[in-house]
Amino acid sequence: MTILLYDLVGTDASRPFSPHCWKAAFALAHKGLKFRSVPTRFLDIPAVEDGATKTVPLIRDGDKLVGGSFDIAVYLDEAYPDRPTLFGGEGGRAATRFIERWSHLTLHAFIGQAALMDIHDMLGPQDRAYFRKSREERFGKALEEVPADRDEKVAAFREALEPLRTLFWKQPFVGGEGPLFGDYIIAGALQWARVSSPFALLQDDDPVAQWFERCLDLHGGLARRVPAAA
Amino acid sequence: MTILLYDLVGTDASRPFSPHCWKAAFALAHKGLKFRSVPTRFLDIPAVEDGATKTVPLIRDGDKLVGGSFDIAVYLDEAYPDRPTLFGGEGGRAATRFIERWSHLTLHAFIGQAALMDIHDMLGPQDRAYFRKSREERFGKALEEVPADRDEKVAAFREALEPLRTLFWKQPFVGGEGPLFGDYIIAGALQWARVSSPFALLQDDDPVAQWFERCLDLHGGLARRVPAAA
Repeated sequence: MTILLYDLVGTDASRPFSPHCWKAAFALAHKGLKFRSVPTRFLDIPAVEDGATKTVPLIRDGDKLVGGSFDIAVYLDEAYPDRPTLFGGEGGRAATRFIERWSHLTLHAFIGQAALMDIHDMLGPQDRAYFRKSREERFGKALEEVPADRDEKVAAFREALEPLRTLFWKQPFVGGEGPLFGDYIIAGALQWARVSSPFALLQDDDPVAQWFERCLDLHGGLARRVPAAA
Repeated sequence: MTILLYDLVGTDASRPFSPHCWKAAFALAHKGLKFRSVPTRFLDIPAVEDGATKTVPLIRDGDKLVGGSFDIAVYLDEAYPDRPTLFGGEGGRAATRFIERWSHLTLHAFIGQAALMDIHDMLGPQDRAYFRKSREERFGKALEEVPADRDEKVAAFREALEPLRTLFWKQPFVGGEGPLFGDYIIAGALQWARVSSPFALLQDDDPVAQWFERCLDLHGGLARRVPAAA
């Protein structure tokens, strides 16, 4: 049976943009599972599956609902052990939690500010009002001010990716010879930026950008099918 | 047969201090293998095992020589598959490479500067001359100048440990419920600082410091047996 992925979008239902939903989409594709993305706007979330969740991604797999990208990956590996692994064992699962923390604090922290107005501009009027209010509370300033210094801060952001960049001296993917959920965690963040914002986050010759291109090619070009923001 | 670990020391042969050698010592203890630390000074290294290596750690296991802490861990998991795993599977091994890169760029980069004079002061006269020359070339300044701003920089260093700190919301060790080589990579760096320098790298109430205390307790208190620098 086709799995449903409640997937965050703005006015264009064909452009899911949430990093967490992309992690789940990559994970579902990695397992070779049929899934259907259900376009979900911010203000739709409370009504999803009769109020089952406050956030997306949420998946429905038969009678099972699972939310949270990491928990979805764990669920998929446990429910479908005969399909390609997302963690490559217990040790991989534990270490991937560290990658998630690093990605959140390094990539999300910057992208969430640099692309903030671009994300806002993808939304419809009601979602915009929700988004502005919640984000202005979070950042303690006007939405427009948050990304204002992104040009000055991008060099430090790129520098902070050095652990990932130098990893590619050793192996083509975070998961080793092929991708695992650790790749999808980071690629999900970069896809969020790619779909939302024309801001040049990475330089083309950056090994991180080259790895991300490899990720865009995966699973029949799943993530590349959504064109980059222009 | 007892495995030999060529282990970097200064004038006090009972105080091995190299982060990389500590990683190997933790790994050997984790596998429950008998090993003997062979105190090795910087200028002894070229003569170790008839010139087998330019760096330590190096281990001799029967007729096998293996150098480099990560390669030693990989070797031990492959040679002793029935003993406790250091990686918890292929995925763990790949992701642990990322932890190594992060630890190197975050912990080593700061500790190697903050503790530089303290490390120098542990060495005998000939090693001091070698150390000064090689490190002054690396840093492009007088040895004494390198740690001069450590008090100003320590807050940023502590902040940079946030991915590790917040990981402990989820699990007690980098390896999950128990330690794996990812723990030893980071604990090796902190043990290097602990053995070399009285500088207060972490605050006592930091979850990272509390996790490191758990690491000092492991394997019969292996790492705690060497008293902290005073």
